[in-house]
Amino acid sequence: MHLRRRRSAHWLALWGCIATSVGLAQATWSQTTNVTLEAVRSYRDEHSSRILDELVTLLEIPNVASDDDNIRRNARLLVEMLESRGVAAQLLETPGAPPAVFGSLEVRGATRTVVFYAHYDGQPADARRWQSEPWKPLLRDGPLRDGARTLPLSALDGEVDGEWRLYARSASDDKSPIVAMLTALDALREAGVQPSVDLKFFFEGEEEAGSAHLGTLLRENAALLAADLWLFCDGPIHQSGLQQVVFGVRGVIGVNLTLYGPLRALHSGHYGNWAPNPAASLASALAGMRAPDGRVLIDGFYAGVRAVSEAEHRAIADAPAVETQLLQEFGLRAAEVDGASVLERILQPAMNVRGLASGAVGSAARNAIPSEARASIDFRLVPDQDPERVRQRVEAHFETAGYFVVHDEPSLEQRRAHARIVRMQWGSGYPAMRTPLDLAVSRAVVRVAEEASTSKVLRIPTLGGSLPLYLFEEILGAPLIVLPMVNHDNNQHAPDENLRLQNLWNGIDLYASVMARLGELWDTD
Amino acid sequence: MHLRRRRSAHWLALWGCIATSVGLAQATWSQTTNVTLEAVRSYRDEHSSRILDELVTLLEIPNVASDDDNIRRNARLLVEMLESRGVAAQLLETPGAPPAVFGSLEVRGATRTVVFYAHYDGQPADARRWQSEPWKPLLRDGPLRDGARTLPLSALDGEVDGEWRLYARSASDDKSPIVAMLTALDALREAGVQPSVDLKFFFEGEEEAGSAHLGTLLRENAALLAADLWLFCDGPIHQSGLQQVVFGVRGVIGVNLTLYGPLRALHSGHYGNWAPNPAASLASALAGMRAPDGRVLIDGFYAGVRAVSEAEHRAIADAPAVETQLLQEFGLRAAEVDGASVLERILQPAMNVRGLASGAVGSAARNAIPSEARASIDFRLVPDQDPERVRQRVEAHFETAGYFVVHDEPSLEQRRAHARIVRMQWGSGYPAMRTPLDLAVSRAVVRVAEEASTSKVLRIPTLGGSLPLYLFEEILGAPLIVLPMVNHDNNQHAPDENLRLQNLWNGIDLYASVMARLGELWDTD
Repeated sequence: MHLRRRRSAHWLALWGCIATSVGLAQATWSQTTNVTLEAVRSYRDEHSSRILDELVTLLEIPNVASDDDNIRRNARLLVEMLESRGVAAQLLETPGAPPAVFGSLEVRGATRTVVFYAHYDGQPADARRWQSEPWKPLLRDGPLRDGARTLPLSALDGEVDGEWRLYARSASDDKSPIVAMLTALDALREAGVQPSVDLKFFFEGEEEAGSAHLGTLLRENAALLAADLWLFCDGPIHQSGLQQVVFGVRGVIGVNLTLYGPLRALHSGHYGNWAPNPAASLASALAGMRAPDGRVLIDGFYAGVRAVSEAEHRAIADAPAVETQLLQEFGLRAAEVDGASVLERILQPAMNVRGLASGAVGSAARNAIPSEARASIDFRLVPDQDPERVRQRVEAHFETAGYFVVHDEPSLEQRRAHARIVRMQWGSGYPAMRTPLDLAVSRAVVRVAEEASTSKVLRIPTLGGSLPLYLFEEILGAPLIVLPMVNHDNNQHAPDENLRLQNLWNGIDLYASVMARLGELWDTD
Repeated sequence: MHLRRRRSAHWLALWGCIATSVGLAQATWSQTTNVTLEAVRSYRDEHSSRILDELVTLLEIPNVASDDDNIRRNARLLVEMLESRGVAAQLLETPGAPPAVFGSLEVRGATRTVVFYAHYDGQPADARRWQSEPWKPLLRDGPLRDGARTLPLSALDGEVDGEWRLYARSASDDKSPIVAMLTALDALREAGVQPSVDLKFFFEGEEEAGSAHLGTLLRENAALLAADLWLFCDGPIHQSGLQQVVFGVRGVIGVNLTLYGPLRALHSGHYGNWAPNPAASLASALAGMRAPDGRVLIDGFYAGVRAVSEAEHRAIADAPAVETQLLQEFGLRAAEVDGASVLERILQPAMNVRGLASGAVGSAARNAIPSEARASIDFRLVPDQDPERVRQRVEAHFETAGYFVVHDEPSLEQRRAHARIVRMQWGSGYPAMRTPLDLAVSRAVVRVAEEASTSKVLRIPTLGGSLPLYLFEEILGAPLIVLPMVNHDNNQHAPDENLRLQNLWNGIDLYASVMARLGELWDTD
């Protein structure tokens, strides 16, 4: 704490100076909310070109966690971005992992500390499946599905339309939230408004790779990271376009499966119904794990699934139905979805087949029995499923079906000894987490969001996606709330990820409001 | 016929001259078999470098049927190779297809005509999965699986070991048989031995692409192609290493399936058990088409399968059991194969999954629901299954399962209207064919093979692989027999295709024997 205070002293003095000189430091937010929001909006209208320049510069650095050189270029730039705002910044290192970027800004008179969380790494991108280069941001005048036209980046120097979109890996997930937070600071300083809480920033560098070292980082920096609230600025807003405050996330564990056939691909004529076909075996194995309606058939998979509370059901009932719109947007027929609410569905765990690969298809297909077949799966978990227990149950499922389970490439001897072999390469997973909806801080965050938003704010018991939130609760003991800003149709984790610019503008308003207002509302509910 | 006679006149005169001058033209083969075989063997021992040079030059030309420029370079070289032997050669053209290469050599006094068939196109090759470049022939001192070392091609100028292997696409399937036939001609001429039958050569250019234009070519050139026997020099010898004479082939029909999910890949967390997953649906669909033991579950698939005759069962029983050796070689455990004989199995039809593709696996996997999933399948057919009927039954199978079957990319309206859509892209297929084992010519071919071989010759009722032999029977009315020469472990249709050099030497002996001897044995059985 001492180190942090010293580092940020200079800028704080400056801020105090500005705030005092414009006579706002002593005013209560409730009297000035509209004035300050207007000031923030004016700020980002006037500086839209500079704000988007900073985002584009950040998006141009590839950010797959395993790409060590580039991930560190991202981290160094983030430190510079924090320091340029007078935020004391440093890298938090642990061996074998991308660094986390930490920043701290103490405010005179504040009694609570809020940590803003985002991750700066992104999902891998298969450039062949993108319409543009993943790490070469491209501006379009709308979403690709509407046949949007490409605009030159120089168009951002003129009047910017909120419906324009910036296409790049991590445009939404999570680089734009980082830029929104830092711009919120700029806008408040320009308006002479002092934050109402001490601020910390924690930007993780391996979230999309499974957050294997996050626990270590939190444990080793527990004192530095002490706070009264962790605010997670990840994930999209509601599909209806409404702001949402999210109180939980699903857990996840992923596995890559490999099934083995003959040592080399064999002519499908000569050996076509004699030698076993691993692609056909994989299809049978997957069909035995997941029913066509999505139900997971692995024995014991649903053990420990926490019942949904009345408060959670009520919050969901209060959310608008978006299913019809989504079916239209995704080109789907309702039959498989069967009237189910997305929000109710994601309160249950899921098995998702994220990839299949064996031999070749289409014009590259050869009349051969493939020598192996691979599938990649992620399991989405809910409280109180334990990932390690899920792993054991999946392996037991294969063993019961007569498979010899290995974790490394099977030896020739093993292949000759076992008719059915599955190699399971597990990713590091983590459990789900849900925060109660009726804590004082939960209600305060909802009220701040309502003040910053021009429309209804939804309370969502859990996000469908996964974040390692359980760690913060377990290690740091602080409550966690997810306060997202990006558009729901952002293609995160997929080709052509994008950000709708209006969501960036709204995000700046939202995070500026949290900074300026949360301290006041915390105890006044 | 007139054209052909005129074109080949010059070389025939020359041959007659040589033959007469060395006093062999009038001698019967039975008196000179051993002498001639020795002469052929001496010839290929002495000219091994030149023979392999010619093969390497042919292998260096990429030969995927759809690669028009290169496929025609192959065809032009083959015309040159025929003409350099005095064989009248021409391209047989039909619009939209690679040309067939035709050659004709009439022999004084011969009363029968034999056509040597091979195809000069090859399967596509995924270079990333090869140890060497598919169209850059590489010499090794044995098979790759034994850790063979690479040898410089210049090693072929010294003493050549029959266990050496040449690695290249089509090294076995079928460019080396073509070189063996032409070298057989060279060797006989050098030995002053006149062929006992009129010879024709027919090298097809789109066999690996499904022979869509072969019927047209045969119909349009029926007079030119008239013959008493078609000899198919395709496929491998028996897995035991013994020479085999094969009397039938399986038919084939291939299909590429595409199943559809959301229009774009979706975050598997946010939509992970709400939006349908096409990869999981594909797995279920394939599991519903083929049982784990290989049995095809499509209603009516086995209708019309011809019963195996007593003669066929006897011929199979006479063949050595190779299954234990194959299991060892392919790294397989017997359980799935369940003691079944390969030869008995391939008398039945099969469904082979030759490829799967959806999303991504391994380190490229993303936590997303793929927007589509693809599988490529080939069905191996036996007499008297009709490919068109099989196609209908497969489509009916999907329709019964509630799928909307399309053959082109489904429209947005179709995707919104149907919960389950499958796109089926069918390749051109053809039925199977089997020739009776007891025709005079069948027996004569077996005897020639026995004379040329140093060990037992097997009679195989059907090859597991597919060739469009039904067309020759249907259009030209001539009997067909398959007389292969290449090693069974040649990786045809797969990465690292190769030729064991001893099989080339044996093939030269074999085809020289057919040319010199078949006419005599035809009627003397």
